[in-house]
Amino acid sequence: MCVSMCVFIMKTPAAVRLLLSLLMLWSGVLLVAAESGGVQHEDAAAATYSQQTCKPDIYSMLMEVSAVLAEQRAELRDTKAQLEAMESRLRASEQSAQELREAAERGKVSFSASLVASGDVTAGPYNTATTLVFKHVFTNTGSAYNPNTGIFTAPVRGVYHFTIHVFGDGHQSRPTGASLNKNGDHVDIAHSAGNSKHVAVSNGASLLLEVGDVVFVKLWPNTWVRDTGSHHTTFSGHLLFTM
Amino acid sequence: MCVSMCVFIMKTPAAVRLLLSLLMLWSGVLLVAAESGGVQHEDAAAATYSQQTCKPDIYSMLMEVSAVLAEQRAELRDTKAQLEAMESRLRASEQSAQELREAAERGKVSFSASLVASGDVTAGPYNTATTLVFKHVFTNTGSAYNPNTGIFTAPVRGVYHFTIHVFGDGHQSRPTGASLNKNGDHVDIAHSAGNSKHVAVSNGASLLLEVGDVVFVKLWPNTWVRDTGSHHTTFSGHLLFTM
Amino acid sequence: MCVSMCVFIMKTPAAVRLLLSLLMLWSGVLLVAAESGGVQHEDAAAATYSQQTCKPDIYSMLMEVSAVLAEQRAELRDTKAQLEAMESRLRASEQSAQELREAAERGKVSFSASLVASGDVTAGPYNTATTLVFKHVFTNTGSAYNPNTGIFTAPVRGVYHFTIHVFGDGHQSRPTGASLNKNGDHVDIAHSAGNSKHVAVSNGASLLLEVGDVVFVKLWPNTWVRDTGSHHTTFSGHLLFTM
Repeated sequence: MCVSMCVFIMKTPAAVRLLLSLLMLWSGVLLVAAESGGVQHEDAAAATYSQQTCKPDIYSMLMEVSAVLAEQRAELRDTKAQLEAMESRLRASEQSAQELREAAERGKVSFSASLVASGDVTAGPYNTATTLVFKHVFTNTGSAYNPNTGIFTAPVRGVYHFTIHVFGDGHQSRPTGASLNKNGDHVDIAHSAGNSKHVAVSNGASLLLEVGDVVFVKLWPNTWVRDTGSHHTTFSGHLLFTM
Repeated sequence: MCVSMCVFIMKTPAAVRLLLSLLMLWSGVLLVAAESGGVQHEDAAAATYSQQTCKPDIYSMLMEVSAVLAEQRAELRDTKAQLEAMESRLRASEQSAQELREAAERGKVSFSASLVASGDVTAGPYNTATTLVFKHVFTNTGSAYNPNTGIFTAPVRGVYHFTIHVFGDGHQSRPTGASLNKNGDHVDIAHSAGNSKHVAVSNGASLLLEVGDVVFVKLWPNTWVRDTGSHHTTFSGHLLFTM
Repeated sequence: MCVSMCVFIMKTPAAVRLLLSLLMLWSGVLLVAAESGGVQHEDAAAATYSQQTCKPDIYSMLMEVSAVLAEQRAELRDTKAQLEAMESRLRASEQSAQELREAAERGKVSFSASLVASGDVTAGPYNTATTLVFKHVFTNTGSAYNPNTGIFTAPVRGVYHFTIHVFGDGHQSRPTGASLNKNGDHVDIAHSAGNSKHVAVSNGASLLLEVGDVVFVKLWPNTWVRDTGSHHTTFSGHLLFTM
């Protein structure tokens, strides 16, 4: 029995082996105690054989303890390495989420304004295209639109959508027209010839803007634009997505 | 040699120290065994000195084992504390991601509708501005637009963009006009005077809305608006971003 | 004192118990050493009692060591299980964030184009509605709009917003009109009757599109549309959100 248990112990992990060894040591000690107590058995020889063959001594016990400790040390080191690797991934994940949140905040760019705050204003005609300054601000999240200059400046690289609604001078059936401009370039135009009173024309475009690109509206040469406190003539824009 | 090894051992971590001690103990035991076996050496005195100087005894071995166990215990405690700290961060990260997902879902607000579902309708004129009910719904994600009342109610705080396209009564060259309204306030107007047949006018605005703010379109007093099954007159709006 | 310490030790965790046992063992050894050194005490009997009652022997010490090792093993196993559970959560979190990023990239869909790149073009009239091909591309993020066919094809399921601005043939005061179409269905129309020169009309809609759904603009039968290098007639669209 004892020999086969010894063989069994060899196949078990160090920690379990240690426990079994301790149990066997314990029994061995009791056995020795019994023997030294003067009790004579018929199987005394067998008992002696058993002790010699597989009774663990304290030194081998300590070796086992040491092996278990080394095993646990390795597992602990392994666990700590995994923990560090995960910490690194978690940090990357947190940082990425933070960047996403910050990008979402930076992406909150929108403005909407009409030409005049109050009073009836008819502007034009001018010989050259003239920037229209939309002074009455409905909303200006991100403050990228400047109501003093009429110029929108892209705070982040991305695609923006702009819309202009332009109201003509109605009394005289004059032509009206305004163009959307990006930096020095004409983008498109909202225009109506002169035989309709108070007609409103619109246009718009989605544009990829680099940081610092400017977008603004110009009154078309030799046309009139009109606005009143009812806010007919408006300029709106917002970021669709960053790029 | 043995003395310098003892000094070396003092400088090594407890775990390695234990292993080395065990090896030394083992050799010490073999040495003792050899001696007690009756073999006489010329360097017996040296061996005895060696044993006295640095042969670890079982008690100090157990002290070492205890030290290693305490060391591992501390490391394990440390590891568990790190694990808990990470778990807390991970939970925060998961919660934040969940909130982001929920916010993204709540942000899916868009509607688009035309005035009539079928038939040709010319509305107006009224002495006072009258809410237009856009009955034919193209899309109404989030169900924030009520096609029975014509009123859009903001489900989340944020900036929304609205557009109105208004078609005039053409046969009579009558004026047309509709205003965009937020709660009790006029925002802006799409309007055309009366000398054009079937002209279409548009306007729009981006507005910051609080939860529960309402936006709707009113027919301008003393003007006409027209729609047919072709859907000329429309009202659209969607959330740009939450605030 | 020694007995009460033994009782106290029984109530403490295995690791602390081991340390205390080791300390007691150490003192016990010193005591035994002192006795064997021949020093006679009056309380020799008490000392012997003390040794018999609670001096831990090496076997019980090793049992304690084994218990501490088993305890730590269990804790380590527990820690590793927690680590695995967290790793699994972290992986899910990373995957979810990755999907969000990919969805955000897929959601970058926007196009904007005008009818002609250069030259003055007046199209129409046709007996049947004819697809307008907007050849001058302002922006086409995601390449979902085909400037050779005039057709936008939805790359992801979601709600999209489209706008058309249509410029009439002014010289002849001809009617102008263009419709927004989704697959085989008419959505809405921008239209103006024929008594205004160069009038511009607009319309738009937000539509829920399945992957592969197509949206395009048709010139209304028996009307004219005009565009020039100034880009009066435009077609824009962009994804509002995926569904």
